[in-house]
Amino acid sequence: MQNHNPEHFSSIATAAPTVFFVSDGTGITAETFGNAVLSQFDLSFQKVRLPFIDTITKAHDAVRKINDTFTISGKRPIVFSTLVKSELSSVVRRSQSMYMDLIQTFVDPLEKELEVKSTHTVGRSHNIVDSEAYKNRIEAINFSLAHDDGQSHKNLSTADVILVGVSRSGKTPTSLYLAMQYGIKAANYPLIPDDFERGKLPSSLPPYKNKIFGLSIAAERLSEIRNERLPGSKYASIENCRYEINEAERMMKREGIRWLSSTTKSIEEISTTILQEIKNEKRS
Amino acid sequence: MQNHNPEHFSSIATAAPTVFFVSDGTGITAETFGNAVLSQFDLSFQKVRLPFIDTITKAHDAVRKINDTFTISGKRPIVFSTLVKSELSSVVRRSQSMYMDLIQTFVDPLEKELEVKSTHTVGRSHNIVDSEAYKNRIEAINFSLAHDDGQSHKNLSTADVILVGVSRSGKTPTSLYLAMQYGIKAANYPLIPDDFERGKLPSSLPPYKNKIFGLSIAAERLSEIRNERLPGSKYASIENCRYEINEAERMMKREGIRWLSSTTKSIEEISTTILQEIKNEKRS
Repeated sequence: MQNHNPEHFSSIATAAPTVFFVSDGTGITAETFGNAVLSQFDLSFQKVRLPFIDTITKAHDAVRKINDTFTISGKRPIVFSTLVKSELSSVVRRSQSMYMDLIQTFVDPLEKELEVKSTHTVGRSHNIVDSEAYKNRIEAINFSLAHDDGQSHKNLSTADVILVGVSRSGKTPTSLYLAMQYGIKAANYPLIPDDFERGKLPSSLPPYKNKIFGLSIAAERLSEIRNERLPGSKYASIENCRYEINEAERMMKREGIRWLSSTTKSIEEISTTILQEIKNEKRS
Repeated sequence: MQNHNPEHFSSIATAAPTVFFVSDGTGITAETFGNAVLSQFDLSFQKVRLPFIDTITKAHDAVRKINDTFTISGKRPIVFSTLVKSELSSVVRRSQSMYMDLIQTFVDPLEKELEVKSTHTVGRSHNIVDSEAYKNRIEAINFSLAHDDGQSHKNLSTADVILVGVSRSGKTPTSLYLAMQYGIKAANYPLIPDDFERGKLPSSLPPYKNKIFGLSIAAERLSEIRNERLPGSKYASIENCRYEINEAERMMKREGIRWLSSTTKSIEEISTTILQEIKNEKRS
């Protein structure tokens, strides 16, 4: 990393300070969480992730980068750290920065509450590849890929969820997200004009109705998305989108399938909603 | 949710307290972060995510669930909260719990450091679907899917990364992860015995050598993974796995392609390493 590259720092002197996400692992937690905190400020930060800081030497390298930024920008950088080992965090803590220790801040009061000592070990992620949960995620990704867009009717009985909806309503990214983040085996089936004419769900689905979730979407939004793919096509026209969505919603209503609208929802929001439904079911 | 279901609470009285992740959004940040903190304790927690707590009524519902848990288990639950609006957090804060305010804990000192007030607004995620970054992610997922396993040679010039490696070395999940989390357009190509016999990279790749990353893997591990898929096959045999990996590594060395071993690395760790490489390149 060339932190002395002048281009890299051109806009810093007048802007918000640089933010470093420092971790002994990937830094994903530090970055995700730090971004949630920073989103409370109406400023645009320069952000740098420093992952895999797992030796004293690397900790000193990190300090050098942080201090260089301070020297050049004249502003004290902000550090979000998930370093767990005290010999590493004590090094980076001494950098010329506002050092925020994400883990220890909560571990200390938790030790009191739980009346046990923490283990001070580097995140479980280091043996993650051998864990059941990780294997399930990889297996779910393979399942969801094999069952994308109605490609395979095999093993639907092992699916956790089957998403249905018109083309481009968000089924594929949602299926992959559910698989990747939660190890949920999510198949997905398009509802197409053929199905509407027959007035029936795709033929492999009726036995699994209890695990079907529908995605719908506003016609205007759908037309916009489809026009990016096939501009000016009948497929993308607002009339056709309205037709398909009306038919799909009518079918889901008739078949008693739950659905939600993906119009203003991210794949994270859609997935969270589906997860809650699955959990409630298992409990009821 | 049926929190009075006795089964749901059967093991709680003797175990660690229940942990609630409370959020006005998906709760993904609260859960990811809370899990990182909890992993410092050698205890197994009962975990409950309460997402979309975005009204006073829902905040009171959340309090009821937390208090019910306290009543039934006799242990004060732990709450990790990313509620941003003070009218919501002040409700949940009064529950019978150890309440940890993940956002405010860091926003207060940051306000002092930055000498600006925070906006106290609910996470940006609520308009996320319209953002450029979100659209790029969806576009990248579509790209990575279309370019999975060497399926398409079109538009390789627009790929950010092209992963190569033998079958089952981790290319597909890594490509999808890079796309989904970072909006990186990641194509992937298998290296197969045909390529080794010809002694050349797949023919579409040489023009894009600077964006190729290789994945390798220990033969034993590969054989294990392949055996789950096709037990007892030549494809999965340790001899064949050794042959393929030797050939693939020889080819990557000859062609000057960077590679890393996925043997003990999660897709998050592989992706982080690749991201760092891409960034360093752009800076140098």
